[in-house]
Amino acid sequence: MKIIELDKKVLKRNDEIAEENRKALKQKGIYVFNLLSSPGAGKTSILERIIQRLKGRVDIGVIVGDVQTDNDAKRINKYKIQTVQIITNGACHLDSKMVKNAIKKIDLNNVKVLFIENVGNLVCPSNFDLGEDVRIVIMSTTEGDDKPLKYPPMFYSADVMIINKIDLLPHLSCNVDEIKNNALKINPNLKIFETSAVKGTGIDGLCDWIMDKIKK
Amino acid sequence: MKIIELDKKVLKRNDEIAEENRKALKQKGIYVFNLLSSPGAGKTSILERIIQRLKGRVDIGVIVGDVQTDNDAKRINKYKIQTVQIITNGACHLDSKMVKNAIKKIDLNNVKVLFIENVGNLVCPSNFDLGEDVRIVIMSTTEGDDKPLKYPPMFYSADVMIINKIDLLPHLSCNVDEIKNNALKINPNLKIFETSAVKGTGIDGLCDWIMDKIKK
Repeated sequence: MKIIELDKKVLKRNDEIAEENRKALKQKGIYVFNLLSSPGAGKTSILERIIQRLKGRVDIGVIVGDVQTDNDAKRINKYKIQTVQIITNGACHLDSKMVKNAIKKIDLNNVKVLFIENVGNLVCPSNFDLGEDVRIVIMSTTEGDDKPLKYPPMFYSADVMIINKIDLLPHLSCNVDEIKNNALKINPNLKIFETSAVKGTGIDGLCDWIMDKIKK
Repeated sequence: MKIIELDKKVLKRNDEIAEENRKALKQKGIYVFNLLSSPGAGKTSILERIIQRLKGRVDIGVIVGDVQTDNDAKRINKYKIQTVQIITNGACHLDSKMVKNAIKKIDLNNVKVLFIENVGNLVCPSNFDLGEDVRIVIMSTTEGDDKPLKYPPMFYSADVMIINKIDLLPHLSCNVDEIKNNALKINPNLKIFETSAVKGTGIDGLCDWIMDKIKK
């Protein structure tokens, strides 16, 4: 009982700071995407593909969250764009305060779109608004068609679902239509993309959509 | 600060109940495995394979945890063994009290080995002792070789790591030796198995080891 009360307080404070982040970033004309998924679904790989396509067309900033290591920041740093690694030291999600602190390390005058890569976790991060404009959940074809039903808050709170690793479909019993049906049962408004970050499939459509969002 | 204090209290209470579970189950001569992984790494599929091999040789009980749905219990129920589904309703891990309540629904006189399938999450469940004898973390070849480094508490607290989905190796850039090296950096005492739940590879060795554990 006490835990629930405290959680409410924590979440309320998180929402307040998220709102501050959102206002500050909007004021600078920056559009923000929060990327969420299970560990290993392909957040960083998709982000790399997006950066390859959009670098030079738009100024990109990246915040990456991990329980431990700066491996993801190293992968993004190759593209010479502004990148901040948050190491949560055990925490299972990013929160708006971590993002607020990370934003201070970015030259916001040279960013038009900010991607926040959350900790790999299909449960906890769904509760924490970071100040994003759009929430993207990535699930991979290897995870099982019923995941949207088993982890509903994540799919309910997302605006977009990317089904990644479609290159592996010939080797799996995965049914993409079943994933889509399950996800739309939880959230009929989900916009859905299918990608293979490894092969580059579907990334153009995703990038067109991102550019369209930014322009609006 | 307040959260951390409360967490300590919650974890202390969890550990106490876990110890009660452990004693109660040991008294009945029941050996307990806690299965942990990311969503979709293959916990239920591996469990099904184990049940197929060991049913008739040893009395098995299963507790399955999910944020939502009783899909996993339905999959296990096919084998007509005692199964209890815990739906956590949003909680990101099983705790010892949930397991304590679940155990009450099992006829312990007819169980020799109990498998507890945790919520799919590579972060939070690592903090919660359930009263198990052995903790098994499953990671799949599709998740990326660096996962043990990125989620160290899970691999540090486990006794066993199963690398699942080895049938997909020809289609991935996964390096199994790299996974093993990374995991052993975090926990040099990890016992490691390689399996394909889909093809049945490696399940015999795993089952032999399980039977050996139970007999001790």
